[in-house]
Amino acid sequence: MEDTAEMVGRAFVDHYYHLFDNDRASLSSLYRDTSMLTFEGQKFAGSTEISSKLTQLPLDQCRHVISTVDSQPSSPTGGGGIVVFVSGSLQLAGEEHHLRFSQMFHLIPTAEGSFYVQNDMFRLSYG
Amino acid sequence: MEDTAEMVGRAFVDHYYHLFDNDRASLSSLYRDTSMLTFEGQKFAGSTEISSKLTQLPLDQCRHVISTVDSQPSSPTGGGGIVVFVSGSLQLAGEEHHLRFSQMFHLIPTAEGSFYVQNDMFRLSYG
Repeated sequence: MEDTAEMVGRAFVDHYYHLFDNDRASLSSLYRDTSMLTFEGQKFAGSTEISSKLTQLPLDQCRHVISTVDSQPSSPTGGGGIVVFVSGSLQLAGEEHHLRFSQMFHLIPTAEGSFYVQNDMFRLSYG
Repeated sequence: MEDTAEMVGRAFVDHYYHLFDNDRASLSSLYRDTSMLTFEGQKFAGSTEISSKLTQLPLDQCRHVISTVDSQPSSPTGGGGIVVFVSGSLQLAGEEHHLRFSQMFHLIPTAEGSFYVQNDMFRLSYG
């Protein structure tokens, strides 16, 4: 299960940031009504509110570059959830410097054999 | 439940880093046999292995200074687990500069009304 968690975590992270950088509105499909986002300490609940926050971020053209991805099964009894911990940097169009960030996701399996984001917490890292 | 998660998360973080900085061996009581630690990409499983790694870290005198703590309930169905996301810096005795870090914990409630650490992932942040 540990290798599965790593594989799912990496595939999810690739997919998530690809959507974020290219088709941000479609991120809403990764969240559900029970989902929670804490973005720089601000809380958002449910896929509508979360998607609205993400699409309104003032990051018209940005690119996430991932440094590390760590993943573990989240349940002691094998419930199939996965916690994913990401560090990386955010490159904004026309700006030289990068913003370092870290983010964690808690993924829950769906009945269709996929995963959705139950928990999402994002923080910029100040040096 | 959201406020409870924040309260538990902050109390846990204070307790955890106080033990880390003052009585590191006693951290073992916060982990169980199912617990997992990923420390800078290295994996450890079970409280014995995790505790051994933590006590052997070459950080004889250190102090964690916490910058941010974000917490959310981890289960869509109210299982009582809490995900905690921490950023801060690590100050080593005799060294001027600080090491920035971020860390996530997944806390699971115990039958005794407390919590143990199921998931722990730690990364230093390089600038």
